[in-house]
Amino acid sequence: MQNFCSTVSIFLLKIAINMSHLEPWKVLKSDIVFHNKWVTIQQDTVRLPNGNLIDDYFLNVRPEVVITLPITKGGKAIMVRQYKHGGKEIFLEFPGGVFEAGKETPLEGGLREMREETGYYSDEMIYLGKVFDDPTKDTNCIHFFLAKNAFKKFEPEPDPTENIEVIEVSFEEIPELIKANKIRVCGAIAIYTMAAMHLKFN
Amino acid sequence: MQNFCSTVSIFLLKIAINMSHLEPWKVLKSDIVFHNKWVTIQQDTVRLPNGNLIDDYFLNVRPEVVITLPITKGGKAIMVRQYKHGGKEIFLEFPGGVFEAGKETPLEGGLREMREETGYYSDEMIYLGKVFDDPTKDTNCIHFFLAKNAFKKFEPEPDPTENIEVIEVSFEEIPELIKANKIRVCGAIAIYTMAAMHLKFN
Repeated sequence: MQNFCSTVSIFLLKIAINMSHLEPWKVLKSDIVFHNKWVTIQQDTVRLPNGNLIDDYFLNVRPEVVITLPITKGGKAIMVRQYKHGGKEIFLEFPGGVFEAGKETPLEGGLREMREETGYYSDEMIYLGKVFDDPTKDTNCIHFFLAKNAFKKFEPEPDPTENIEVIEVSFEEIPELIKANKIRVCGAIAIYTMAAMHLKFN
Repeated sequence: MQNFCSTVSIFLLKIAINMSHLEPWKVLKSDIVFHNKWVTIQQDTVRLPNGNLIDDYFLNVRPEVVITLPITKGGKAIMVRQYKHGGKEIFLEFPGGVFEAGKETPLEGGLREMREETGYYSDEMIYLGKVFDDPTKDTNCIHFFLAKNAFKKFEPEPDPTENIEVIEVSFEEIPELIKANKIRVCGAIAIYTMAAMHLKFN
């Protein structure tokens, strides 16, 4: 009965979503107003569904990101700790980074970032989904992978700006670290959640 | 025994973190290179712990964000659906937005955003933690609140750019929506995870 109710309710949600009157905005004009190797700011003039015109909607044009949660045969998650200059703290996360869509697939980017940052490899990469950090202001999406039966195959080769510590954490203890606010990047919490769901149901 | 092992391992992680050689970068120079009402880009010249000098590290200076997960006495989560122009899709999330630190507390901002977007109110606001979307590039943090026993008290008053649908979803069904990639903003997945942990252990 629980399952039946659940299905009906998700079904009703789907109907509500299909009856929705939400529409995308119409882009009338689009200009790059700031650009260098690291930052691109785009200014759009848009027409809203209610007719309103906005001529100063700014977007951060950012490259796609891939994050991988490597888990070993023994149930250890491979995490990385590094200083991040935006947040001005040392963060405990999963390996990942930007990749150039078209030049690399998300899978190739995920394997490359995992190798560079941790030296780990997996031939059981599971795609968990496509998510977003801040779809209000940023154009980019993030691809999540679970790297099952991951093992150390290479020496890490971090970027020159990266000073990374690789740490093994029992996958089962991650909730404790999230609850204690020790894992505090939304993407890291989200990929753990999706990985735990995958491992529970598959 | 399970609990004992778990504690020891978190303890070892704490030792590893205390022995860490990670250090913050030293900022030698900091300039605002692009600025208007909506976007501020800062260029830093930084000295890395390994001695390297980087003179083009760009940060997006962004205001703090607060997100609230309202849950009713009956176990319904109050969610919002809206088009977001960065991601070019309609997203299912929890109410929230930016606030001006100093002018408003995170709690005041959380109550205001919940009221404006959904009309809901709670006098049992639980602070879940401080998190980050992209601490590599963005300066801002996000505050998460759980609004227990939330109830509709006001009419919603969204911003002129906001066309928002308010949807009730059974809290227990949220994992299904995350697994199906219907909830696909990292912050929304992360606040659900932290709220579920709080509700389970308190």
